[in-house]
Amino acid sequence: MGQRLSGKRIVVTDAGDFMGPAVTDLFTEEGAEVIADRRDLRPLAAASELIAEAGHIDVLVANLSIPNPRALAHETTDAQWAEVFDRLVHPLHRLCRAVLPQMIERRGGKIIVVGSAAALRGTPRRSCYGAARGAQHAYVRSLGVEVAPHNVQVNATGQNFVENPTYFPPEVVGSPELQTRLLDVPAGRLSTGREAAAFLLFLASDESDFLCGQIFPYAGGWTA
Amino acid sequence: MGQRLSGKRIVVTDAGDFMGPAVTDLFTEEGAEVIADRRDLRPLAAASELIAEAGHIDVLVANLSIPNPRALAHETTDAQWAEVFDRLVHPLHRLCRAVLPQMIERRGGKIIVVGSAAALRGTPRRSCYGAARGAQHAYVRSLGVEVAPHNVQVNATGQNFVENPTYFPPEVVGSPELQTRLLDVPAGRLSTGREAAAFLLFLASDESDFLCGQIFPYAGGWTA
Amino acid sequence: MGQRLSGKRIVVTDAGDFMGPAVTDLFTEEGAEVIADRRDLRPLAAASELIAEAGHIDVLVANLSIPNPRALAHETTDAQWAEVFDRLVHPLHRLCRAVLPQMIERRGGKIIVVGSAAALRGTPRRSCYGAARGAQHAYVRSLGVEVAPHNVQVNATGQNFVENPTYFPPEVVGSPELQTRLLDVPAGRLSTGREAAAFLLFLASDESDFLCGQIFPYAGGWTA
Amino acid sequence: MGQRLSGKRIVVTDAGDFMGPAVTDLFTEEGAEVIADRRDLRPLAAASELIAEAGHIDVLVANLSIPNPRALAHETTDAQWAEVFDRLVHPLHRLCRAVLPQMIERRGGKIIVVGSAAALRGTPRRSCYGAARGAQHAYVRSLGVEVAPHNVQVNATGQNFVENPTYFPPEVVGSPELQTRLLDVPAGRLSTGREAAAFLLFLASDESDFLCGQIFPYAGGWTA
Repeated sequence: MGQRLSGKRIVVTDAGDFMGPAVTDLFTEEGAEVIADRRDLRPLAAASELIAEAGHIDVLVANLSIPNPRALAHETTDAQWAEVFDRLVHPLHRLCRAVLPQMIERRGGKIIVVGSAAALRGTPRRSCYGAARGAQHAYVRSLGVEVAPHNVQVNATGQNFVENPTYFPPEVVGSPELQTRLLDVPAGRLSTGREAAAFLLFLASDESDFLCGQIFPYAGGWTA
Repeated sequence: MGQRLSGKRIVVTDAGDFMGPAVTDLFTEEGAEVIADRRDLRPLAAASELIAEAGHIDVLVANLSIPNPRALAHETTDAQWAEVFDRLVHPLHRLCRAVLPQMIERRGGKIIVVGSAAALRGTPRRSCYGAARGAQHAYVRSLGVEVAPHNVQVNATGQNFVENPTYFPPEVVGSPELQTRLLDVPAGRLSTGREAAAFLLFLASDESDFLCGQIFPYAGGWTA
Repeated sequence: MGQRLSGKRIVVTDAGDFMGPAVTDLFTEEGAEVIADRRDLRPLAAASELIAEAGHIDVLVANLSIPNPRALAHETTDAQWAEVFDRLVHPLHRLCRAVLPQMIERRGGKIIVVGSAAALRGTPRRSCYGAARGAQHAYVRSLGVEVAPHNVQVNATGQNFVENPTYFPPEVVGSPELQTRLLDVPAGRLSTGREAAAFLLFLASDESDFLCGQIFPYAGGWTA
Repeated sequence: MGQRLSGKRIVVTDAGDFMGPAVTDLFTEEGAEVIADRRDLRPLAAASELIAEAGHIDVLVANLSIPNPRALAHETTDAQWAEVFDRLVHPLHRLCRAVLPQMIERRGGKIIVVGSAAALRGTPRRSCYGAARGAQHAYVRSLGVEVAPHNVQVNATGQNFVENPTYFPPEVVGSPELQTRLLDVPAGRLSTGREAAAFLLFLASDESDFLCGQIFPYAGGWTA
């Protein structure tokens, strides 16, 4: 690989979960100084504390996740609902709010939201999770347009069927149920975490300077 | 007009706001028994109380709104953020959770979410509002697929540039600023509330029995 | 039903195929004077002759089809390819070109393109057919915006899993293969032709005056 | 830069036009052996001759264009219409048909269609051009799904506002009219050809092995 992120300071949230490990590894190889944070972002002050501690940030990778959030809508309790939004949606706003002023002032910076294709294609037992992921996408859509004139780029992915410790851990990867689910995925396989991180690398690098407010499905053809 | 909703009991929430008045008028003319509710749906128990009081419900029109929710992302406070989700997103889930059991048991019913095109096309100062509207759309996308096998249809619109007391009241309709904004709307005008209600009427009637989990832009060509 | 198309003169092309019969029946019941045309529209002059003969036209239903157009891309011959475009794409332009001047002059009129969800969701053996249907949709997208200022509305559907003599004739409807395909359709059934015609009725009526250049999936949740 | 295309043989069509020059330069720097072809692809045999002459092809960049294709729909002649499809649509199929057998046999290969955002967002005077670009996109959508099981990836972009000799040549880049048009582009500027080529590079490299049948807008936020 090259050094496509050379000299960049990059914060990755929830660094032990979801795309955190694969992003941290690849981005580091590509020359970035990665601040791999693992704090709980539910407390109201956590996001601003993280950003303050990190100092200069060129790229924020808003990698937020919650394990196994499947339930029928009419059985989803208020507590379950709130927990999903407390982990996926509200911290996203607080992270962006904290980091944007420095990016706007320097006229440069990028925010990448690692999102989910669950927001793009409906699936049973995913109404709560999908709603939270849909909030992320629509947030990016408007925020990306809002800050593009400041030369700050905000974009998101909508991934599914990517190996990662949160949603496709080894025990799922080897299961017969997954083979059945993959019949519905044109690519016919899971993406490795590294492959998916390579797309996030594109979004983190200067190569994506022209793009803003965009949602990129990354799901092996499962969603258009 | 005909009697396209004859014999249907229909709940309209926030009936004094947003599309409430136009929907109540048109649906009543079309033969529906409209329960035009105006209670504050933020309290946790409000949605289930409304549904319990209403009894048999054939169609729920989830008409939720909040006035004037424009702010730059990095200036949007936690209180503002929470208020938008408390009004637009969380009550939607509680309404659906409360009404779905009776619809599933009867193998019939419809939920229509009056949504916003702000979730579909990015606009500055709309990241919070857009995020909440995007949550609604993605919720509908998955819920619609989940309950379609029970013969319950859940669909949403994504409207903009529609006359209504909340977002396009008379003082906005007559303003020079609106004329400038309309330059970006291929239809070149606002929709009347009644026109937009006619599309919701289609979704409320038996004519839409085949559709589920779908988002219908209604914005004069402003979004694809 | 009511008389939602009372007083309107409506041309339906390929009236014996695809959605022709269901549209002709329903639109006639709704008070329209339907000119149900069955001529071969491949000859260059056919479209303009049809429009000239019809005289005053309030609504053009561009209902174009070709039976059974499935083939692997690398086995699709030039002749097969050309035939699909000759039937689905090129006549659409000639029909619109012929009818638009009278609509623009009168400042009123509607064109409805009965399209296919094959343009919206990829399927093996449908690259040629899908491409032609995609051309229709993109044509509508730009034409709708172009003529909206003249108060002429152009919109399209993207349907699939609708009973019709061309793609879902009785022998397909009763086949075991269809039952397998329906597992992938959230609605779990075919739409009747009449149901689908009711959505086209909405687009043909004054209720859709605000909409332009829009593509409406109509596929039981098979595509978002 | 690195050597992200090292060892790959890549055909670029219409190499003097549209994205041809920028792609040829960047891909060569990245280690590819680029066959920059400039033949007229309208003759029926041209595509298969090109593929036969090129021999082993790892990546086909279907870069097809036609200058200045703007016209009102009702003034677009049959000759103009046919010319656009003869240049943009029909050769795409013949190119894919010719190159797919070798890729399927080797279980590896990529086709990248340099498409246009004119298919994604409606614009006046673009119905013909948009229709042809829409045919490209829908072709990719189905073909991508069809050949993904053979480990052949087919994807497309939908670009606009990218400097290139065909649509944004120097005289347009410096014009006052462009400055007005850019008011509608959130990025507020044109993309350089090299930036846009970097996204095509991602699609040409092994990094995109998981993606198939997907359309990537590349238009500075002009389309979602």
